[in-house]
Amino acid sequence: MKATVIVRVKPEVLDPQGDAVRRALGKLGFEGVKNVRVGKVIEIEVDDAHARAPDLRQRLQKMADEMLANPVIEDYEVKL
Amino acid sequence: MKATVIVRVKPEVLDPQGDAVRRALGKLGFEGVKNVRVGKVIEIEVDDAHARAPDLRQRLQKMADEMLANPVIEDYEVKL
Repeated sequence: MKATVIVRVKPEVLDPQGDAVRRALGKLGFEGVKNVRVGKVIEIEVDDAHARAPDLRQRLQKMADEMLANPVIEDYEVKL
Repeated sequence: MKATVIVRVKPEVLDPQGDAVRRALGKLGFEGVKNVRVGKVIEIEVDDAHARAPDLRQRLQKMADEMLANPVIEDYEVKL
């Protein structure tokens, strides 16, 4: 099965990549873009034996805490 | 309103970043991870006047085609 972890820069943290995209969209003629934030989507394929484990969500949260996200500046969301 | 564009490396294209994450998760002791793919999630805040335009989805697809994704190696999905 496939689990998804979405990692976003925290709302109170500046996102220079998103700002660069917003400016570039403006230059390309796309109007009405107020703000852009760029995050990561990490799709994790888990084998059947581990997908059935009752602690799958906790394990994915641990992965996100320890490696996929930087908890100081990023939030994450686990989707099963 | 907020629109989301998800950009993923095409299935037939190698994803070295995803492979690195998969190996690193294994080294950290997370078992059962068969495959990992890393993509981008781009959240675009559109002002009210433009959000009501009937061609909003087409405009977002154009943004993705022209700037947010590299159509040669990436697929994208627009969510309103």
